[in-house]
Amino acid sequence: MFVHETQIRVRYSETDRMNYVYYGNYPQYFEVGRVEAMRSIGISYKDLEENHGVMMPVKSMSIKYLRPVFYDELITVKTIVSALPERSINFHVEIFNEKGEITTGGTVSLAFVNIETKESIPCPEILIKQLAKYFDV
Amino acid sequence: MFVHETQIRVRYSETDRMNYVYYGNYPQYFEVGRVEAMRSIGISYKDLEENHGVMMPVKSMSIKYLRPVFYDELITVKTIVSALPERSINFHVEIFNEKGEITTGGTVSLAFVNIETKESIPCPEILIKQLAKYFDV
Amino acid sequence: MFVHETQIRVRYSETDRMNYVYYGNYPQYFEVGRVEAMRSIGISYKDLEENHGVMMPVKSMSIKYLRPVFYDELITVKTIVSALPERSINFHVEIFNEKGEITTGGTVSLAFVNIETKESIPCPEILIKQLAKYFDV
Amino acid sequence: MFVHETQIRVRYSETDRMNYVYYGNYPQYFEVGRVEAMRSIGISYKDLEENHGVMMPVKSMSIKYLRPVFYDELITVKTIVSALPERSINFHVEIFNEKGEITTGGTVSLAFVNIETKESIPCPEILIKQLAKYFDV
Repeated sequence: MFVHETQIRVRYSETDRMNYVYYGNYPQYFEVGRVEAMRSIGISYKDLEENHGVMMPVKSMSIKYLRPVFYDELITVKTIVSALPERSINFHVEIFNEKGEITTGGTVSLAFVNIETKESIPCPEILIKQLAKYFDV
Repeated sequence: MFVHETQIRVRYSETDRMNYVYYGNYPQYFEVGRVEAMRSIGISYKDLEENHGVMMPVKSMSIKYLRPVFYDELITVKTIVSALPERSINFHVEIFNEKGEITTGGTVSLAFVNIETKESIPCPEILIKQLAKYFDV
Repeated sequence: MFVHETQIRVRYSETDRMNYVYYGNYPQYFEVGRVEAMRSIGISYKDLEENHGVMMPVKSMSIKYLRPVFYDELITVKTIVSALPERSINFHVEIFNEKGEITTGGTVSLAFVNIETKESIPCPEILIKQLAKYFDV
Repeated sequence: MFVHETQIRVRYSETDRMNYVYYGNYPQYFEVGRVEAMRSIGISYKDLEENHGVMMPVKSMSIKYLRPVFYDELITVKTIVSALPERSINFHVEIFNEKGEITTGGTVSLAFVNIETKESIPCPEILIKQLAKYFDV
């Protein structure tokens, strides 16, 4: 299992008039979480697109909103990969507030797609190789 | 069953460098869909907040991304309520592109909350009353 | 002088915890205004990019925030072109609330750029031709 | 003169199909710049709102877009206050890319407003006091 944590400061722009973070802004936090998780094991998503011809469109997402998140909170985004990816990769995400309470849980599933042909491809070797270190294979 | 359709023109700001609508912008389309659905039966969400003291935070959401949506497309957002709400309301959403193809499907579940006490309450009578017309009760 | 008006319903996502539209969301309204203004004279910005190889990055913008705009207001975006474009085009924008009060004024200046070479080019003929009808030339 | 720098990683969500950061997302970067600038001298904008009853709506903004900013760049936001605020405060902002090139310049002017009465007020003493250290007064 691969687990990574990163922190994000909530922006004013991300709140809405309910005084909470708008429910549609969490996917951005999830994105930051998984991109930083990949960077931590030496994989740049930008590099995947620009130098490996691989893009990773989202196929599905589910989110549970357990507690509101507020302006200026320094949230912790915990990103978990619990299975080695094959044709797609699942990121489980948990967001914690400054008190350490869980606020949000979610799962995002992304495909691997050839940028030129737009066809689905298996997970690139460089990603598998780095992730494999965290699994008993 | 209550079904409503509204149309939205995709903005440049909503695309990302993959040339698609960013996956985190669909919740905004879902929001427009359900607000217009409610308006069509005489319920203003703004009015619920400002004059009835009820807010509707999102409790959970799931989305399937079936086909990309592109810049400047005039999409159709179909919003469906298939059961009378009690402590929460589920909106099923389907988004269609200009060719009539389904691009996105999702469900959003919202609670009814007293704006002052922040406590969960049952669905307001004025909403039940308008929705009931679409159900065999 | 070319003048065009379009209407936009303010989304919940566009508000912030001050209860107003977030100051950074007005550029999106300006974008909708100028794209619809161009569409009204037969010019699709998408078509400019995809079939004419022209893109229009923003070079500068200024905004005055005169009155707040609120959730669910149906605002009117007035877009004005007061001079025929040469190497760039200036859109003046005024946003009015439902009472007809001006809320926001701004100017956005955009360049014409060849999508392949990224070099600045003169205003495309098809755009000049349509705009010229509104000027004594 | 008071000068502060902070860094921001460009998110995928902030790009558009032109492959650049969308022109309407820079105000968010400006916001992060000024909030972190204030935090660095012990002033929390959240605290101003919640405990001092002061909010700071934006009155005007101007931006020059000199070079595009790209996905995943670690940009530096330089925030400058060059005069002690009276009824409003001006933040000058410069954004630099990883090569140290300036990409964007701007100015944002914000008012001080009493949250209850919505009336303009002078700059709060606690902010003046902290800023004064950077000026020959």
